Amino acid sequence: MKNVYLPGCLLGIVVAGLLLAAAPPAAVLRKVRQYRQGHEQALLAEYLHLLAIPSVAADSAGLRQTATTIAEMMRQRGITNVQLLAAPTPGVPPTVYGEVRVPGATRTLVFYAHYDGQPVNAAQWAPGLSPFKPVLASGSLASGGHLLPLPAPTAPLSPDWRIYARGSSDDKAGVMTILTGYQALAQSGIKPTVNLKFFFEGEEERGSPHLAEVLRKYRTALQADLWIICDGPVHQSGRKEVVFGVRGDVNLGLTVYGPKRPLHSGHYGNWAPNPALELAQLLASMKDSTGRVRVAGFYDDVVPLTAAEQAAVRRVPAVEPALQQELGFARPEGQGQSLVELLNQPSLNINGLRSANVGAQAANVIPTTAEAMLDLRLVLGNDYQRQLAKVERHIERQGFFVTHAEPTDVERAQHARLVRLEPGAGYNAQRTPLDLPLARQVVQAVQTTTAEPVVVLPTLGGSLPLYVFKQELGTPTLTVPVANYDNNQHAENENIRLGNLWDGLETMAALMTLK
Amino acid sequence: MKNVYLPGCLLGIVVAGLLLAAAPPAAVLRKVRQYRQGHEQALLAEYLHLLAIPSVAADSAGLRQTATTIAEMMRQRGITNVQLLAAPTPGVPPTVYGEVRVPGATRTLVFYAHYDGQPVNAAQWAPGLSPFKPVLASGSLASGGHLLPLPAPTAPLSPDWRIYARGSSDDKAGVMTILTGYQALAQSGIKPTVNLKFFFEGEEERGSPHLAEVLRKYRTALQADLWIICDGPVHQSGRKEVVFGVRGDVNLGLTVYGPKRPLHSGHYGNWAPNPALELAQLLASMKDSTGRVRVAGFYDDVVPLTAAEQAAVRRVPAVEPALQQELGFARPEGQGQSLVELLNQPSLNINGLRSANVGAQAANVIPTTAEAMLDLRLVLGNDYQRQLAKVERHIERQGFFVTHAEPTDVERAQHARLVRLEPGAGYNAQRTPLDLPLARQVVQAVQTTTAEPVVVLPTLGGSLPLYVFKQELGTPTLTVPVANYDNNQHAENENIRLGNLWDGLETMAALMTLK
Repeated sequence: MKNVYLPGCLLGIVVAGLLLAAAPPAAVLRKVRQYRQGHEQALLAEYLHLLAIPSVAADSAGLRQTATTIAEMMRQRGITNVQLLAAPTPGVPPTVYGEVRVPGATRTLVFYAHYDGQPVNAAQWAPGLSPFKPVLASGSLASGGHLLPLPAPTAPLSPDWRIYARGSSDDKAGVMTILTGYQALAQSGIKPTVNLKFFFEGEEERGSPHLAEVLRKYRTALQADLWIICDGPVHQSGRKEVVFGVRGDVNLGLTVYGPKRPLHSGHYGNWAPNPALELAQLLASMKDSTGRVRVAGFYDDVVPLTAAEQAAVRRVPAVEPALQQELGFARPEGQGQSLVELLNQPSLNINGLRSANVGAQAANVIPTTAEAMLDLRLVLGNDYQRQLAKVERHIERQGFFVTHAEPTDVERAQHARLVRLEPGAGYNAQRTPLDLPLARQVVQAVQTTTAEPVVVLPTLGGSLPLYVFKQELGTPTLTVPVANYDNNQHAENENIRLGNLWDGLETMAALMTLK
Repeated sequence: MKNVYLPGCLLGIVVAGLLLAAAPPAAVLRKVRQYRQGHEQALLAEYLHLLAIPSVAADSAGLRQTATTIAEMMRQRGITNVQLLAAPTPGVPPTVYGEVRVPGATRTLVFYAHYDGQPVNAAQWAPGLSPFKPVLASGSLASGGHLLPLPAPTAPLSPDWRIYARGSSDDKAGVMTILTGYQALAQSGIKPTVNLKFFFEGEEERGSPHLAEVLRKYRTALQADLWIICDGPVHQSGRKEVVFGVRGDVNLGLTVYGPKRPLHSGHYGNWAPNPALELAQLLASMKDSTGRVRVAGFYDDVVPLTAAEQAAVRRVPAVEPALQQELGFARPEGQGQSLVELLNQPSLNINGLRSANVGAQAANVIPTTAEAMLDLRLVLGNDYQRQLAKVERHIERQGFFVTHAEPTDVERAQHARLVRLEPGAGYNAQRTPLDLPLARQVVQAVQTTTAEPVVVLPTLGGSLPLYVFKQELGTPTLTVPVANYDNNQHAENENIRLGNLWDGLETMAALMTLK
C-alpha cells in the first residue's frame, strides 16, 4: 500500500463550519460515544490503512508517507494550518502540525504523539503476522486469541479484538485517538473549551535527537499552557491513567573483541580468549542477583519523591501478583519493592545479546565478537551523560580497554580485554509537579469518562523526551496513555485492543473539552 | 549445479588394468608430483564441482547428491566395489565405500574422510562469497587476498591461491586428496603396498550419531590394520603432521527463560527478571578470568600423558607469538601453558549467544529468552555424559531449575531461575599409542614427502569420533590432516590453500605406498 488512500466513507467528514456548542462532560461523553459507535468500521478501516504504511527509522520514504497521510487525515477533519514542519537539520522525518483555534478560549493544549515505531525483525513475529500488514485477532494471541478475517461491513466489532502491527500501540494509537477524539466532537457539534494544537513527531523511537531544534525553530507557533503526551499503556489494572513524568533514557551498545577470525573451538579452545565469555563476565558484574545495579554511584543523583508523590505511589493499585502469573516468572527483581517504586529508580537493562550463532546454526567456534545492547533508564536528578560515564568507568574497572571505534592492531596487541562502546542519543527524566492547577483539571476531565478512579502516576517507567519541552519552551507536560498494557510495544507482535482505541478517543475528547 | 557433471578431461582416467609396479619413496614422490603438476587445472575443476554441491545436515538431498558424486569419482578412478552404505537407521546420509585390493599386500589401510560440512549462515560470509558457490582468491582474504576469476585453461595456478567454500577444508579436502593421491599413483603406474579401503562419512559435523551402527553392520568389509583419518589442519608452522588422538566433544544448548512475552524495558525494567542477565551470570560462573573452568571436578578424570607423549609435546614447534599477533589478541588463556599443553586438557567454550536483538535492530525490551551454545572438548579419561552431568550440576548450584523441555506454567511459578538444557550427540576422546609399529611407518611415509620434520601430536585439539573405531572394530586410528591451519573451518569464509591440496595428495600417495 504505497499510495495514499483513504476510505471513501471518511471523506464525508470534512467540516467547513459546523455549529459548535459547549456541553457538560456527561453530554460530551454520551454524544462522543454515540458517534464512535456509529462509525467503528470506518475508523477501523482508516486505522488499518495508517498501520500499513511502514514507519521505522530505516525507511525514510515510509516515514514521509506516514506524515503526509496523517496531514491529509487532519485536513479531512477540518483541522487548520496543517503542515509538515521541517527540522533545521536536513533528512529528519517531518513533524506533522495543525491547530484548531476556538473563539473565546483562553488556554491552549498541544496534543503530542509520534508516528514512528520501533525497529522490526519480521522473522520474529508470529506466523500470520507481519509488522506492516495489520491483521485482526479475536484477543491477545499470547492468551488464546486467533486471527480473524476482516469483518463484514455492518458486523459489530468486539472491544476485545486486537489489531496486530508495528506502531499499533506505540504510537500511531496516539495519533489516531487524538484525531478521532477531535472528529467525534466536531461531528457531534461540540465546541472544544481550549485551543488545540497537534504535534506528531517522527523520530521518537530514535531518542528524538532533533526535537529540541524543532521546538526552538517553531517556538512561536507552539506557545501553549500544557502539552498532552499521548503515548504508552494505561495501567495494568485497566484503569485510565494520568502520568506526571517519564524516565529518561539512553542506550549503550557494547562489542567485545576476540580473535580476528573465528577459530575452531577444538584447535584453539582453552588458549584463544572467547569474547562471549568476556562479555558475560562483564555483564554479570553490572548487577547482583536481586537486580541491584553494582555500577559505582549508579543511584547517587536521584531526587527523592515529594510527600505528595509518595502518597500517589501508595494509591497505585497493586498488580504484581496477577502480572507475575501472566508473565510466568516466580521472583521479581527489587527485593520486595513494588513495581511502581522500582520504576522511580534508575535501571540498567540488557536489551539483547549476540555472538556467532546458537541452536541449529551454531558451529564449534570461538567467536570474533560478542555484542550487547544496554538500556539505561533515568529518573529525576540523573544526567544521561553522567550515567553513561559511570557505566564506562565500571567497565574499565573490570579490566577492559574502552574504545569508541574498531580496535587497531596496536590496541589489540596492548590490551587483553577490548570493548567498543557506542552510546545512543539520550535524554533526561522530567516530572511535572502534582499540584499544577491545569493538571488537576486534566485528571478531572479524564475522570469524567470512567467510573474507576484514575491512576495518578508521578512517573511512567517508560521514556519520552519531555525534558525538552520544559527546556525549550518552558511548558509543562502530562502524559495520558491509551494503549492496553499487554501490547508488546517495542517487540514483535505489537498490538492494540480495539476497546482501548475507543476509550482513548473518549479520553482525548474529554481533554479537549476540559473545564 | 544439481546434475552430476564431471569435467570431460577426467573421464579418461578410468583404469581397467594398468601395469602397476612398486617403487621406492623418492620415485613415488617424483612421479606423483609430475602427475599432479600436469593435471592441476583438471583437479581444480573437479574439486570446484564437488564443492558446489550443498552438503550440510539441513539439506539431505544435497548430502545424497554429494555421496553419489563421490561414488562416481571413485569409479572413474578404477576403485572397485564402490557402494553407498546405508545405516540401519533410515534417513541417515549414506557412507561412500570402495576398495582397491593389491595382490601380495598383507596389510590394509582404510582412508576416512567426511563429506558433510558445518551449518552455514550465508549472511555472515564476506561479500562475493557464498558457501556453495566456490570461488578462487589470490590468498587469504583476511590478509589482503582478493577474489580471482577462473584461470584460463592453460594458466599456471599459484599454490598460495585459495578456494572459498563450505567444506573446502573440512572435509571435502580429505575426500579429494585421498582420491587424487590414489589417482596419481594409478596413473603413474605405481602399485600401492597395502590394500586400500575408502570410507567417506556424511554425518561427522552432527557428531557421527550413526557411525557405530554403520561400523557394526559392515564390520566384515571394514577389517583393516589401521584407519587413516584425513581431517583437520596441518600444524600452524606449516609442517606436516601425524596425530595420534583426538579430543572428544559434546555440545550443550542452554535457554534461560524470562517473562513469557517481551516487555517494554521502561515499564518493567528493575522489576521483571532479565534472562540475558541471568545467562550472563551463569556463563560467567563457569570460567575464571584465566579461562580455567570452575565446574566442580571438571579436570578430575584426565589420564595423564605418558613420558613419550610428553616428550612429543615438547618437540612441537612454538607458534604462539606469531599466532597471537595474527589473531590480534594480547593475552591467551591458560596462564602461560603452551597451546599444545592446553589442547591436552578438557575445555568449555561458548560457541554463540543470542537474546532478542542488538545493533540497529535492538529494541528497548526485556527479552523472553537468552540462549547460548556450549562446546565441551574431552581428553582421554573424560566421559562425555559424565562431563555433561558435572556442568548440569554446576548450573543447578547457581540456583537454576534445569528442564529439558519448554518450562510449564507450574515450573515457571515455582522456580525463580529456569534453564532448558539440550545436550547434543557426544563422544569421547581417543588416543593411539605412540609406539604402535604401523604408526611409526606412517610417520616415516609422511616424512618422505617433506624436508621439514613431521610434527607428531599425541592429540589434536579438534574432535573426531575415533573412539568408535576402536570400540566397534578394535582397529587403531591415526589422523593425517592436510588443510591449512587458517582455513576458517567451522565458520564463515571457510577456505583451502591450493598448495595444501597438492601436498595432501602427495601425503596420501605416500601412505598408500608405505614400507
